[in-house]
Amino acid sequence: MQITLIGSGNVATHLGAALKNAGHQIVQVYSRNAGHAALLAYHLKAEAISNLNDISSNTDLFIISVKDDVIADMASLLAIHQKPIVHTSGATPLAVLQQYTAEAGVFYPLQTFSRTKEVNLKTVPLCIEATSEGLDGILQQLASTISNNVYSVNSEQRKILHLAAVFACNFPNYLYRASQQLLAQHQLDFNMLRPLISETADKVQQHLPAEVQTGPAIRNDEKTMTAHLALLSGNDELTAIYNLLSQAIIKMGKA
Amino acid sequence: MQITLIGSGNVATHLGAALKNAGHQIVQVYSRNAGHAALLAYHLKAEAISNLNDISSNTDLFIISVKDDVIADMASLLAIHQKPIVHTSGATPLAVLQQYTAEAGVFYPLQTFSRTKEVNLKTVPLCIEATSEGLDGILQQLASTISNNVYSVNSEQRKILHLAAVFACNFPNYLYRASQQLLAQHQLDFNMLRPLISETADKVQQHLPAEVQTGPAIRNDEKTMTAHLALLSGNDELTAIYNLLSQAIIKMGKA
Repeated sequence: MQITLIGSGNVATHLGAALKNAGHQIVQVYSRNAGHAALLAYHLKAEAISNLNDISSNTDLFIISVKDDVIADMASLLAIHQKPIVHTSGATPLAVLQQYTAEAGVFYPLQTFSRTKEVNLKTVPLCIEATSEGLDGILQQLASTISNNVYSVNSEQRKILHLAAVFACNFPNYLYRASQQLLAQHQLDFNMLRPLISETADKVQQHLPAEVQTGPAIRNDEKTMTAHLALLSGNDELTAIYNLLSQAIIKMGKA
Repeated sequence: MQITLIGSGNVATHLGAALKNAGHQIVQVYSRNAGHAALLAYHLKAEAISNLNDISSNTDLFIISVKDDVIADMASLLAIHQKPIVHTSGATPLAVLQQYTAEAGVFYPLQTFSRTKEVNLKTVPLCIEATSEGLDGILQQLASTISNNVYSVNSEQRKILHLAAVFACNFPNYLYRASQQLLAQHQLDFNMLRPLISETADKVQQHLPAEVQTGPAIRNDEKTMTAHLALLSGNDELTAIYNLLSQAIIKMGKA
């Protein structure tokens, strides 16, 4: 397919690379920042543009991958080209595009992307939604060229996925950060915890999290929890987090 | 080495298997539950005992791997054999053994063990402490036969590691559980989140967590956070967790 990328952030970068590697042609890359557009376009062998007037109608699909609050603006400006428009946002309903075009869709990769790390898209769930059966088929087909995990997900479900991803990714990463800081404060190397972090994520690949919960809270081991809280004294933030999550785990253990 | 295992829980089971595979001889396995002792002893080709009077002095090392609050009792009963005694607990100071024997140590594997999942000990950090240089050398040597990550860690540091492990393992696993329940409530498959969980843990193997934090809180994206909280309305527990962790991430972003 011939594809136009609107945006040059993490999602646009990783998605663009996967699409190009799968044999699709990225026609143009738009970013209001000319430097960003040029860099990503260079990698994708596409034309870089930083003025929306330069966008060509000669494409099969517009993929909008920009901040949520400017998706609608972009769609309103792209509608004139009369080509299908999709966005890549977990939190934005399909209706936001649908007000501007009959052929609208969503192409949401459920993954955490950082500029510094390659991601194998093949295992990343791609969540598809479309206003028409025709576009749905096209997006399913396109998605299957870059991922083995393609799902049909409506806007209500996608909202839940996006929320759940915060619990499964953003919050655990913050807790990794907290553990790393505790170690650093005592001249201990974060490498000592990295295998534990890997194993914890690995366990739930085959099991449900409730089946593999370990630690003092699930054992209701009050002596250990009291000792931990003593070590955290003076750190109100981590004390509050320790108490809240431990209570939740104790409750889960009793359920 | 000839080793006697006191205990038959998850740590004793995984440690015993790794030691046997490394060529050591497990002489006896003690558990007050005769069935548990028999099962683990069978796997380790050791003698099963469930009466402490049956413990043989014919061993090089006692490894106590039981609940924290009975470690001291066990040590008091083993002292008569005049052989080195170590425990495998993250939360128990060396001094608890030292009151009963001059040759005391700690052999703490920093990992989460579940009965249902094999763990490759080679990558697991083994934290060593001993009352004498002689025993320290023996434990370092023993540890290096089953792990490539052997660390000298004193009792104060080990307490911090044990606490940090709660933040790096037990709490993230609870949050996986929360995400899985959110999905289940909306007929969505937890498989959709598993690649995200893997990638999140994988990212911090090479990077520091603060470098790869993503999500609405680190962007201070109030619109998305408000939408997420609306989806959580009625669930006081997850609302409290969402608020507390989001505020902590926002604060971290400003630091």
